[in-house]
Amino acid sequence: MARLPRIADLDAASAGTGFFLCTRKERRTGRGGPFLILVLQDVSGPITAKVLQDVEPNDEQFDAGEFVAVQGRGSLFHQRLELVVERIRRVIPEDADRGFRREDCIPCSPRPVDEMWTELTGWIAAVADPHLRELLCRLVAQNEERLRVWPAARQVHHAYRSGLLEHVLQIMRVVSALAEIYGARKDLLIAGALLHDIGKLQELSYDVAADYTVEGNLLGHITIGAGMVRDAMRAIAGFPRALATEIEHLILSHHGDLELGSPVKPMTVEAFILAAADDLDAKLHQVRRHLAEDSSDGPFTSYQRYLERALYKGVRPRSVDNSS
Amino acid sequence: MARLPRIADLDAASAGTGFFLCTRKERRTGRGGPFLILVLQDVSGPITAKVLQDVEPNDEQFDAGEFVAVQGRGSLFHQRLELVVERIRRVIPEDADRGFRREDCIPCSPRPVDEMWTELTGWIAAVADPHLRELLCRLVAQNEERLRVWPAARQVHHAYRSGLLEHVLQIMRVVSALAEIYGARKDLLIAGALLHDIGKLQELSYDVAADYTVEGNLLGHITIGAGMVRDAMRAIAGFPRALATEIEHLILSHHGDLELGSPVKPMTVEAFILAAADDLDAKLHQVRRHLAEDSSDGPFTSYQRYLERALYKGVRPRSVDNSS
Amino acid sequence: MARLPRIADLDAASAGTGFFLCTRKERRTGRGGPFLILVLQDVSGPITAKVLQDVEPNDEQFDAGEFVAVQGRGSLFHQRLELVVERIRRVIPEDADRGFRREDCIPCSPRPVDEMWTELTGWIAAVADPHLRELLCRLVAQNEERLRVWPAARQVHHAYRSGLLEHVLQIMRVVSALAEIYGARKDLLIAGALLHDIGKLQELSYDVAADYTVEGNLLGHITIGAGMVRDAMRAIAGFPRALATEIEHLILSHHGDLELGSPVKPMTVEAFILAAADDLDAKLHQVRRHLAEDSSDGPFTSYQRYLERALYKGVRPRSVDNSS
Amino acid sequence: MARLPRIADLDAASAGTGFFLCTRKERRTGRGGPFLILVLQDVSGPITAKVLQDVEPNDEQFDAGEFVAVQGRGSLFHQRLELVVERIRRVIPEDADRGFRREDCIPCSPRPVDEMWTELTGWIAAVADPHLRELLCRLVAQNEERLRVWPAARQVHHAYRSGLLEHVLQIMRVVSALAEIYGARKDLLIAGALLHDIGKLQELSYDVAADYTVEGNLLGHITIGAGMVRDAMRAIAGFPRALATEIEHLILSHHGDLELGSPVKPMTVEAFILAAADDLDAKLHQVRRHLAEDSSDGPFTSYQRYLERALYKGVRPRSVDNSS
Amino acid sequence: MARLPRIADLDAASAGTGFFLCTRKERRTGRGGPFLILVLQDVSGPITAKVLQDVEPNDEQFDAGEFVAVQGRGSLFHQRLELVVERIRRVIPEDADRGFRREDCIPCSPRPVDEMWTELTGWIAAVADPHLRELLCRLVAQNEERLRVWPAARQVHHAYRSGLLEHVLQIMRVVSALAEIYGARKDLLIAGALLHDIGKLQELSYDVAADYTVEGNLLGHITIGAGMVRDAMRAIAGFPRALATEIEHLILSHHGDLELGSPVKPMTVEAFILAAADDLDAKLHQVRRHLAEDSSDGPFTSYQRYLERALYKGVRPRSVDNSS
Amino acid sequence: MARLPRIADLDAASAGTGFFLCTRKERRTGRGGPFLILVLQDVSGPITAKVLQDVEPNDEQFDAGEFVAVQGRGSLFHQRLELVVERIRRVIPEDADRGFRREDCIPCSPRPVDEMWTELTGWIAAVADPHLRELLCRLVAQNEERLRVWPAARQVHHAYRSGLLEHVLQIMRVVSALAEIYGARKDLLIAGALLHDIGKLQELSYDVAADYTVEGNLLGHITIGAGMVRDAMRAIAGFPRALATEIEHLILSHHGDLELGSPVKPMTVEAFILAAADDLDAKLHQVRRHLAEDSSDGPFTSYQRYLERALYKGVRPRSVDNSS
Repeated sequence: MARLPRIADLDAASAGTGFFLCTRKERRTGRGGPFLILVLQDVSGPITAKVLQDVEPNDEQFDAGEFVAVQGRGSLFHQRLELVVERIRRVIPEDADRGFRREDCIPCSPRPVDEMWTELTGWIAAVADPHLRELLCRLVAQNEERLRVWPAARQVHHAYRSGLLEHVLQIMRVVSALAEIYGARKDLLIAGALLHDIGKLQELSYDVAADYTVEGNLLGHITIGAGMVRDAMRAIAGFPRALATEIEHLILSHHGDLELGSPVKPMTVEAFILAAADDLDAKLHQVRRHLAEDSSDGPFTSYQRYLERALYKGVRPRSVDNSS
Repeated sequence: MARLPRIADLDAASAGTGFFLCTRKERRTGRGGPFLILVLQDVSGPITAKVLQDVEPNDEQFDAGEFVAVQGRGSLFHQRLELVVERIRRVIPEDADRGFRREDCIPCSPRPVDEMWTELTGWIAAVADPHLRELLCRLVAQNEERLRVWPAARQVHHAYRSGLLEHVLQIMRVVSALAEIYGARKDLLIAGALLHDIGKLQELSYDVAADYTVEGNLLGHITIGAGMVRDAMRAIAGFPRALATEIEHLILSHHGDLELGSPVKPMTVEAFILAAADDLDAKLHQVRRHLAEDSSDGPFTSYQRYLERALYKGVRPRSVDNSS
Repeated sequence: MARLPRIADLDAASAGTGFFLCTRKERRTGRGGPFLILVLQDVSGPITAKVLQDVEPNDEQFDAGEFVAVQGRGSLFHQRLELVVERIRRVIPEDADRGFRREDCIPCSPRPVDEMWTELTGWIAAVADPHLRELLCRLVAQNEERLRVWPAARQVHHAYRSGLLEHVLQIMRVVSALAEIYGARKDLLIAGALLHDIGKLQELSYDVAADYTVEGNLLGHITIGAGMVRDAMRAIAGFPRALATEIEHLILSHHGDLELGSPVKPMTVEAFILAAADDLDAKLHQVRRHLAEDSSDGPFTSYQRYLERALYKGVRPRSVDNSS
Repeated sequence: MARLPRIADLDAASAGTGFFLCTRKERRTGRGGPFLILVLQDVSGPITAKVLQDVEPNDEQFDAGEFVAVQGRGSLFHQRLELVVERIRRVIPEDADRGFRREDCIPCSPRPVDEMWTELTGWIAAVADPHLRELLCRLVAQNEERLRVWPAARQVHHAYRSGLLEHVLQIMRVVSALAEIYGARKDLLIAGALLHDIGKLQELSYDVAADYTVEGNLLGHITIGAGMVRDAMRAIAGFPRALATEIEHLILSHHGDLELGSPVKPMTVEAFILAAADDLDAKLHQVRRHLAEDSSDGPFTSYQRYLERALYKGVRPRSVDNSS
Repeated sequence: MARLPRIADLDAASAGTGFFLCTRKERRTGRGGPFLILVLQDVSGPITAKVLQDVEPNDEQFDAGEFVAVQGRGSLFHQRLELVVERIRRVIPEDADRGFRREDCIPCSPRPVDEMWTELTGWIAAVADPHLRELLCRLVAQNEERLRVWPAARQVHHAYRSGLLEHVLQIMRVVSALAEIYGARKDLLIAGALLHDIGKLQELSYDVAADYTVEGNLLGHITIGAGMVRDAMRAIAGFPRALATEIEHLILSHHGDLELGSPVKPMTVEAFILAAADDLDAKLHQVRRHLAEDSSDGPFTSYQRYLERALYKGVRPRSVDNSS
Repeated sequence: MARLPRIADLDAASAGTGFFLCTRKERRTGRGGPFLILVLQDVSGPITAKVLQDVEPNDEQFDAGEFVAVQGRGSLFHQRLELVVERIRRVIPEDADRGFRREDCIPCSPRPVDEMWTELTGWIAAVADPHLRELLCRLVAQNEERLRVWPAARQVHHAYRSGLLEHVLQIMRVVSALAEIYGARKDLLIAGALLHDIGKLQELSYDVAADYTVEGNLLGHITIGAGMVRDAMRAIAGFPRALATEIEHLILSHHGDLELGSPVKPMTVEAFILAAADDLDAKLHQVRRHLAEDSSDGPFTSYQRYLERALYKGVRPRSVDNSS
């Protein structure tokens, strides 16, 4: 039997078998008895799936949170593609011989994580201010395991494995360029780029999917992150107090305005630059992803609800991975 | 020569001598040469004053930030009362014999501070949860000197000596009553009442007048206060983590909404109650003060710009000090 | 056959028989012919139900607006529970022997109405001002039948039998406490608590469910209520004009701001207090009810769309009935 | 000595004598002793005036609220014209021989009141519905004295003698035309045009200048007017209830949206039309008046703060009195 | 077999055959295999339809964009009417004998286009200013084909054949009346009424249904229209520059405010009038249409989401075609 | 006599002579007779000045719009510095020998215009797309005279000689860097950077100070600029239509949102980038200028009303001219 393409490449004519991660499973009752509604995902993203036939035997073969082997075909529902599942069961060891790889089933940054990590350490090594460099080294060392794989959000933008790292690196490139152009303090900006979302390591839990922690919901990543960095700065002997306050200000103000969740507005040149870079990177990521995923006809995409507009597809941007 | 009434009781017919704190002094040049524009204050509040005659000799006699002896008379300017100063000099030791007392020249809560402190310690003693009680005892002990005298704001509401303490006690009374009525956790609310604005001890500097510190402006009292309390909770062995997170949530959410400066919205019954109590107390204080200070004719006050309305004076509230 | 639990306690494993009020019935056509979609309710709240089999014979057995006997089982649909109905018919006299009681099928305040009525008359008796006390006595006497049973809203908060009375009493408790704390005029506040929503008696029609009347939609309860009270005040000889205007102001301004439907903003101490108490009580009721009804996993509820947030379930509030 | 032109025609070169109404008088103290700041007005509008010399003897000669005889000259202050007064005293009987007429000193509609009254009674006579015609006749008869002279506002638009009548008639012309074009119920719209602002007769007090009454501030003209009309409708035997509700809806909704002070939004064709006509007439009156009064150079006026824009003067509208 | 009524008159009891335009066709997969979901329309409007049986053979008989012959019956789904299709095929020449007429299947203005065209040319002929008259004649001549049939929008209001012309004529009537009442320049307003939406001829593509063009989405009809008119004015020798600027200002400012898409606010009397007329006509069209199409019970319609309210049906407006 | 420092370096102790441009002159009457209030400026910015003595003879010596020789001294008024003028007269030819240079009296970009022009032509030469390069060459050639000297605004940011060119070049640097980082089309972005504000050449008039033209006020620079560029693109044979539409979209959407004056929102990657770059450059210019001009004490500036915040001065940015 044919192999299904990866989710991003599925269409209504696709049919065959494939391996996925099942992140949601719900049993509903319809006229003809129960059926199952699922969310499946692979490295290229998520899709809704339904088990409409042989529900009972299929239902017993897997649970939400497991990797699954699926036989099915694509189908349109309200102009959105979904997968109609004929057979499904949890992955077994022998599936490795049939091509199953765990990493193929988890949405992931298009950039290899080791390449990104090398770039990150390069940026940190270039920080001239010794206190800042030590701060960054310590925080990276303490959080390496999470920093390598964490997503930048539960949804909205960079919501996949290593998405936070990818987002941080793009902002580092942007603020580095802007620091040159505007004569701003580059060390401060590189630190801000790395640290502005570091609270997400505790705001979100993440194994194969992200969710908010109790602290994440009740405190928010801005406050959590400012606290993590304040603790780290205190632990460094001689860290200048004025510098510590500015770093914390960068983190607190990086959403740019109160109604966006920052408790204070940017009040330094660097805080203005960091907030602008973060906002632009998040928006461009949504633009690129929506252009890549949209399957509507015509020169414009469907409506993107976070950006509150449709996008123009006329001249396609080169790729999602931002490599120029 | 007659003694001037205190500032709150001055009118355009007042004339005589008095002692004040001069908080601002500026030299301007007009057609007839320079003149001075001052802000003077006593226990009852501030007033604008002008030195229009004998400017040079008067100018040499005092500086901003000093206590001064003044001879002058009330005068209306754009329907606002001001003090036209004929003679002014800094206070000298002999003025003690003429009735000068430093504490008469600093705006102050109408409630005696010792009485308030006794009420505060009573509230804390009644907290049943041992971790919370220890937290409150520690923070009060560490910050007693400031907590006794700090204002609640630079302007807007409770912007005078011991204003923060007065504000905290009113909120304690309110949340205690609401906890009874709504079956909410009173210990948590008493803690929230005491701690919600504790960051103001570092957000504001205060000697004889309040101003924002560098940390106050760049970080804000919500973040500062959450950090102070988090540090204190960590220092208490066995402080429950879930409780710590809820306490921090109370502080972070107490402005009630993002555009008012809270990085998170209230998500617990107690957080809703605390935010409502804080908002009401701040507004009622502004209402009472504006009713007390307004000198316009007719049944309505002049426009109050923070509340964005005029207020009805028809039936006067009993007093500003809120004692029932 | 087993008895179904009450609606608030249903889950996907529930199966059996029960009595309900059917408030909506709609016939739809699907692939396999028609099916029915219903809303059923009992004292604990409403639920969506579907008749998927034996549609024709079941359809003939009942109409919307009738009490019904049902055999069915719980089922999840988009993570929301619904009831799949196997058999349904209108209630017959013999059902009384099987446990049917009309009052068990109508959502109702958790507090007994007679207990609430006693509390209400107690509050009124304690009003010292004779004009105000007469006003309240008259309006309560004229409207007793409705005041005892009316809901406070069609949905949102206190949207069940005697919900308005429950809401009024909570506000009386709150404003009474706040009047003590802030030295405000308690008689005026008790009157405001009773009268602020009295227009709802004409804004809403109510038998077993609430809906807007023509006057309710075109005029709104604020204007209707102010008119009802103005008429009653005129009918009392010697009712002071200034007091009448303040009472009417309390009613008109109790939503707190223009965009919330009040034609004027609060301009007296009492109007600020009443608006704050009404807002807090409505919000806390929504918080409590959402916490009680939410069936999602994890420490947070699903999103509450009126409050625009999820709520924290970590430490459960004691109960929905607000008894402490 | 020359006669001063009327206020609307004054410029910095004007000098001479004139009669005015003094609506405000305030004594201030400057370097050289006290001076007086006044507001004077005549039929063409208000102006700020100052008494800088002979202050004491001039001050004794008049009070605010009196008609005064003035000798002075125009002067520019911050690009705004004001009147520097050399001599001022209250009007005496002999001034009648010198040309003083009380009506020349009160700002007034450009249309003669009797002409407007005739137009008004014509519109009412043309109302076909007998209940509506009787309602309008009664309310006009009861309120004739005020309706003939009342201003439409304290400031903003039509803020002069008979301004309310002028505003009502313009709206009658507009809604009559729109009723034809859109097939709407003209009788209802004529009634709405006459009654929508009738609450202003009690919201404002007016003798020679307008101010808010206690009821005006605490209740607002929308609620007051709806109550006046409801009382009048009740007094007419057989007035249809549905019609009464629609009339009241027209009054309540005529500001068009909640944040503009209407407690309900327009929900009928006629309510949409009335709200649009009222808004347009108020705006065009401000446009015309600002174009007429603006004395700035160039093709654009100064900024108009209620309309939040400058206006284009390039092709002058024909006149302020709206006659075509 | 019975003939189906036109779509606006369908109800759940309707059954029979009819001719429609199919504007959308989508294949979905359900439990029992695929089914089709369609949008069908006739002169009276659109409806959702479903093919649930004989899907394969029906599917082969037609495509989206074709006129179709249908056999089916009405059905309610979520309180909205839809058409369940039993048989469907594309129209064949012989259908002309069975009553098929292309124009019966396209939603269309209730006013005959030739009658409207005659009215339009009459308005233009009455323009006194020769430059303006020439401008209007040229633009009408150049765009006659489109102007006769274009809709005014893709949805929202006047979204049917000749809807733009109908909208323009209503506005001409309104601004003509307002020009008389307010002494405004009628020629300018007639030009503004004709030209304000002329960019829609390029913003929208239209054959049997409207959609946005690339230019329409990326530039918007306001900018497109201003450019079309500017080009036309340049081509007329001696067209006064000041007049050209005012005409362009009318087009640019006709949405009334920046957040509604106008890059400048109205700054002339005529621009205020045109923006008010356009807004009122669009709203009244939505009111009329919603009142006509709404099928809910009771005195109020269902919620209209563009107007953000329900509407009162108590006294029905005369008709949708606005003829008085 | 000493030479006054340039305006940016004046303080209250400054006294001496200097040359300035007088951009405003107004005569007011005070108690002691008339005085003059002026605005003077030199290359470093503007200042308010007053002539309080010898008013008549000084008044005859100069007019607004002329270069003047002044003798005076600095003075504080409401904490703002102003210049009290003792003698003033228009500049005469002999003043050249005393150091008068016209260019020293006009506020000007800190970057030399020839250097900027060279940078500009370099950017254009690097555009690879031949149509775009030709477009830019033509527009620069046609508008060189204005492009070299025009300010970017009347106030707010870059409101001085050659400010537009300085602003354009900064944006070119930013979008060039962002195009690299995000793989966006650099040619399109360079064109957008040059053309986005080109309408300002007609929106503003400028000789020695900027003001809005009639077209500027009634049409706005966005619409004017889009029209200028559209005309230029049409004149180039074979200019691709899709490219032309995207260029026009860049100009129209560059304010980023409707309420900021853009008639359409950004819908391409490049439009998002350009809008972000324009917004950031305008804000950073205001930040830098406010930090440079602010003369308040302490670590924070006074409130900046366009940015709606105070700014932190703790670590001074390097300089206003943005050179790194």
